[in-house]
Amino acid sequence: MRKPGPPSARTRVERLRKRGHYDRATIDAILDGGLICHVGFLRERAPVVIPTLYWREGDHLYLHGSAVSRMLDTARKTAICVTVTHIDALVLTRSAFHHSVNYRSVVVFGRPEEITDPREKEERLRSFMEGLMPGRWRQLRPVKPKELKATRIVRLTLDEASAKIRDYGPADDKADFDWPAWGGLIPIETYAGSPLPDEHVKPSGPKAPVPTKFRARPA
Amino acid sequence: MRKPGPPSARTRVERLRKRGHYDRATIDAILDGGLICHVGFLRERAPVVIPTLYWREGDHLYLHGSAVSRMLDTARKTAICVTVTHIDALVLTRSAFHHSVNYRSVVVFGRPEEITDPREKEERLRSFMEGLMPGRWRQLRPVKPKELKATRIVRLTLDEASAKIRDYGPADDKADFDWPAWGGLIPIETYAGSPLPDEHVKPSGPKAPVPTKFRARPA
Repeated sequence: MRKPGPPSARTRVERLRKRGHYDRATIDAILDGGLICHVGFLRERAPVVIPTLYWREGDHLYLHGSAVSRMLDTARKTAICVTVTHIDALVLTRSAFHHSVNYRSVVVFGRPEEITDPREKEERLRSFMEGLMPGRWRQLRPVKPKELKATRIVRLTLDEASAKIRDYGPADDKADFDWPAWGGLIPIETYAGSPLPDEHVKPSGPKAPVPTKFRARPA
Repeated sequence: MRKPGPPSARTRVERLRKRGHYDRATIDAILDGGLICHVGFLRERAPVVIPTLYWREGDHLYLHGSAVSRMLDTARKTAICVTVTHIDALVLTRSAFHHSVNYRSVVVFGRPEEITDPREKEERLRSFMEGLMPGRWRQLRPVKPKELKATRIVRLTLDEASAKIRDYGPADDKADFDWPAWGGLIPIETYAGSPLPDEHVKPSGPKAPVPTKFRARPA
């Protein structure tokens, strides 16, 4: 675990510095609560941003996808930026100006390295699956060598990671406290809904797993 | 409305082309359903990805923020990429390999232009607020000139926009149909939760608005 403080100049949160966090406990908690990230990379010197799944293990953030994915092909050779964002609430104030959003985000800079050993790849995929749906891996049809070959996995160290958090109520101007508009938080909540089985699911078969990153929606 | 077909080479969805969409009705629907985007831009020739609010009006996607925001300062001068993503479901199959996610995303490339006229800026902010919470603007304390000055607004045409959608069930190998693992969709659902008023809200005052982009969570 790194002590608080930005590890590089570009990792420092410049505006609203009180929102910046650099300790790994904060960064890891935000990363571990998410499922998709947005990856920024360069194509012909212009920025491209693509959403993709990710997971964290120890000091690395992992990305995976098709071996012929342009994004992963570029990502394994160049500097990229990976951003994970959770929106927690809309913040409503008496003036348009002070409206805001409560959020938690992590930005990671780095040059990914590719995982090429098939056994290592399978182990990492297992960790990803088990982290999201514990117990599911051993229920699945075993991975085939050609599937591992068709899957690219890259990882990024968390050396250049920073978090940004807004997690407080409305910040109205004092003079506006009595202005007759509603002020407060409107929470934004994400749930796993009722599973929709496909036509091959048998009543006697295993039940749908509950993904760990989401709360089950109250029925 | 543009007829279907990619407007530029970089806008073409290369892999899984059947997932690509280029018609404005599809693009607009995805954009209009979202609240935050991820903006990719260059800083010292390296990609940076930052989450921020956005809205669409007609043929433009708008971003706003502090006049001293580094992101917006860069964005108004250079080529950027803005990506909006909705995650709709986890797609569970009998093999690890075919697991997937149902999603809708839009990628927009372009060079933003800045809106500088104060009246035009105020009108755009009003549209943003009214699109999210109809009727709220007129309840708010009027915008001050110094607030408009402190707010930067840029916009991007949707000329180079493309959408990517996965919206179907599990795609298992035929040989795996009877493998005893659960297969189907686990919907991911986002709601506006119960509003949390701050200490200045009076019982006789206006009620909390319901943001248009979200469904109210069933109580």
